[in-house]
Amino acid sequence: MEQYIFKPIGYIKTNTKNIPRHWTISDLEGEIIINPEYKDGLKGIKKGDKIVVIFYFHKSPPFTYDKLIQKPAHINEQRGVFSICSPHRPNPIGLSVLEVVDIFDNVIKVRRIDMFDGTPVLDIKPYIEIQS
Amino acid sequence: MEQYIFKPIGYIKTNTKNIPRHWTISDLEGEIIINPEYKDGLKGIKKGDKIVVIFYFHKSPPFTYDKLIQKPAHINEQRGVFSICSPHRPNPIGLSVLEVVDIFDNVIKVRRIDMFDGTPVLDIKPYIEIQS
Repeated sequence: MEQYIFKPIGYIKTNTKNIPRHWTISDLEGEIIINPEYKDGLKGIKKGDKIVVIFYFHKSPPFTYDKLIQKPAHINEQRGVFSICSPHRPNPIGLSVLEVVDIFDNVIKVRRIDMFDGTPVLDIKPYIEIQS
Repeated sequence: MEQYIFKPIGYIKTNTKNIPRHWTISDLEGEIIINPEYKDGLKGIKKGDKIVVIFYFHKSPPFTYDKLIQKPAHINEQRGVFSICSPHRPNPIGLSVLEVVDIFDNVIKVRRIDMFDGTPVLDIKPYIEIQS
């Protein structure tokens, strides 16, 4: 079976211990600290932008097959892991859409944080609104 | 330096050779074939849903630092890799928002494909509309 190795491009920094459950209900501000060697990759990101942050759920225990079906805290039914945002996933990849509050050097100040302090960031992409 | 190992949960199947540049401009239909052991994780995904598909850019050459700044084909300026959707990224992770045309067993028929045949899929998440 194929496998793919990823390394962090940076990490999340927040002093808050009480992290909201999901970015859609978060107003929490914090920072993404990008590893200095990747700093040039931020060119074009500016204050007010929405960005898609892809990260590693570093606090999740190894995946077990009983987690294929889960009952989310805020939904009253059993759901497949691929239809919910649980941190317990076959590949522990997280995705949050954050707002850029400020950006300087290798630091992006962001709002809507729902990750723990120290969360490794794997990628940042532009957020693209769906035309429906 | 930390590193994280991911394995495919399935792969993209399409007979088309001419793959659109981006899901936002694609009407292409194809399939996501989920590895049978993860099939239960699809519970709750239904026809008409939009899903976020996270995948591995398996055709991308290894990343080199000159790719931190790129000129996208459709944009007339140099941009940082984290502000564009290029397949040449420090971690070659792709993200497309696809529409579920049908779902049965371990197969999701989808529209808006912008991945090559055989692309390894790493995760599927619900698409969440931003309330702005």
